[in-house]
Amino acid sequence: MPANNPPRYDVIAIGNAVVDVIASCEEELIEELQLNRGGMTLIDEARADELYEAMPPAREISGGSAANTLAGLATLGLQCAFIGQVADDQLGKVFRHDMRATGIDFDTPARPTSDKDSEPATGRVLIFVTPDGERTMNTFLGAGQFLPAAALDEELIASAAILYLEGYLWDPEEPRRAMRRAIEVARDAGRKIAFTASESFVIERHGDDFRSMIEEGVIDILFVNETELATLTGEDDFETGLAALAGKVPVLVATRSEKGAVAIAHGERAEVAAVPVTKVVDTTGAGDQFAAGFLSGHVKGEPLERCLQRGAICASEVISHYGPRPEADMQALIAEHL
Amino acid sequence: MPANNPPRYDVIAIGNAVVDVIASCEEELIEELQLNRGGMTLIDEARADELYEAMPPAREISGGSAANTLAGLATLGLQCAFIGQVADDQLGKVFRHDMRATGIDFDTPARPTSDKDSEPATGRVLIFVTPDGERTMNTFLGAGQFLPAAALDEELIASAAILYLEGYLWDPEEPRRAMRRAIEVARDAGRKIAFTASESFVIERHGDDFRSMIEEGVIDILFVNETELATLTGEDDFETGLAALAGKVPVLVATRSEKGAVAIAHGERAEVAAVPVTKVVDTTGAGDQFAAGFLSGHVKGEPLERCLQRGAICASEVISHYGPRPEADMQALIAEHL
Repeated sequence: MPANNPPRYDVIAIGNAVVDVIASCEEELIEELQLNRGGMTLIDEARADELYEAMPPAREISGGSAANTLAGLATLGLQCAFIGQVADDQLGKVFRHDMRATGIDFDTPARPTSDKDSEPATGRVLIFVTPDGERTMNTFLGAGQFLPAAALDEELIASAAILYLEGYLWDPEEPRRAMRRAIEVARDAGRKIAFTASESFVIERHGDDFRSMIEEGVIDILFVNETELATLTGEDDFETGLAALAGKVPVLVATRSEKGAVAIAHGERAEVAAVPVTKVVDTTGAGDQFAAGFLSGHVKGEPLERCLQRGAICASEVISHYGPRPEADMQALIAEHL
Repeated sequence: MPANNPPRYDVIAIGNAVVDVIASCEEELIEELQLNRGGMTLIDEARADELYEAMPPAREISGGSAANTLAGLATLGLQCAFIGQVADDQLGKVFRHDMRATGIDFDTPARPTSDKDSEPATGRVLIFVTPDGERTMNTFLGAGQFLPAAALDEELIASAAILYLEGYLWDPEEPRRAMRRAIEVARDAGRKIAFTASESFVIERHGDDFRSMIEEGVIDILFVNETELATLTGEDDFETGLAALAGKVPVLVATRSEKGAVAIAHGERAEVAAVPVTKVVDTTGAGDQFAAGFLSGHVKGEPLERCLQRGAICASEVISHYGPRPEADMQALIAEHL
């Protein structure tokens, strides 16, 4: 169905509203705490307290996969809005500030924490960064898992060219219901749906949902990494996995860390190498910023290869420093490279 | 008076317990918001909200002048304890975590915030970093200004070789009273008092206090920068200012940013150049880490010049990244340089 009126936003995203707590640590600590090295693990508050206790001094930087992608898009000049659930606490205020200060509209009301002991706080991700720059994430979703469908501003969703959804938030029940409703609203308005698979454990739990949506043609743009592609398709071979999905998703983007990325769109294929960096400091946000770079080109109707190049540049910037959102002048950086 | 028993801690500090909120910004914003470029300004909560609203996306990193110095000292292997006032809120927990994770004992009870709207939150410093790396600090003291003398653990104070105090905390009344009491306790136990002047505005308001303490021989180790030396002595000429204080303070350390530093101790004088850095990212914590480096040498009885060199190395590390506390392996870095 064609869009029923010109979009007011380029991209609206629904995602986790979390603050990253980032510490560098030695390899031994990963083993000692029995962390899932390089992955993302959902944890409850007791485990969050336990891990925080054992964590080296940290810095706090707003995060959340889709929120990071939006921050990248806004930095690249796109009009963006965000829907996500923070609590009415200090970290919630930090998250909201950082979104708005990046130029993103974010008006989902905070969840009250009047009875502090029983109401969940704003979510946070304890990130342990090893000397190789690899991040190991431990997520306490907090208030985020209670994002209700009632919190959706449906007019807002209908007014964005692309609805961007993150797989992480597909796991808790209430946000999943909210995202399903958001998809209906966006499709009724003739908008595109972009989806990032986020992490293999989500696909293991909800792969049937994702495969149904893909078969039904609900997903217009799909972002996966190599592992997620394998989990989603059941094909260990990268090319076989790509072939299994390519015809079912109008735009398929598969990232492969230092091996670059591949995109297949409407039968056309393009590839790009990773942009080399002097030192990988912290890989947090690499996939998120790749998606931002790619989408920023896609929205402008740029050629597929160019969209990938933009993605690779954005990923290379974010892994050069701590934190999951761009710190450089990204428009200048892209202009310099392309 | 000689120490009445061997110290359990090398250094105990009383200081602001604040979290830094650090954003990079363009020069224009400093003018637009009418900030005191390069300085530290005390602000109330309304102004803090106003400035935060106008602030670019930020990162949160535990700060506080004396707390930063302790973090440096602990990283260098010294036994340290801290006394400071946080509130019972998320930023207070962040501050406490970061102190303890650095190996510092910090047990001052948090101030309750049960009635959230009227009780002050944990203090924070909104730091605007311009492209030249200069930081402009705006401090909302919050709970910090209510540190009561009753919160002092006098046995703890008596058990540290050096009591380190920051001038910033001399401004609010309750902490000033607490610090006066702490000085009595430390001196009765035969310990040394180290004092950092912190900022000229503090000297303008409380210079008579400081000058009396210096005349009475209460201060054993004094840290000042060039401007503070001038404000304290009324002498615009650096050498004249040094001469005015040198005989009255057993150890006088005067830092001069990129011009290096001078120390005069018991009649001996030493100088050191600044350690060059590739890029000055954020000068926050430069003075604090200089003090940490110097004290770490002083505690070990190293020669005066070597103490200064350690200070210069620590300052050079902290201005090479965002945030006021060391991120490198400082013991290795010092071993590499000296």
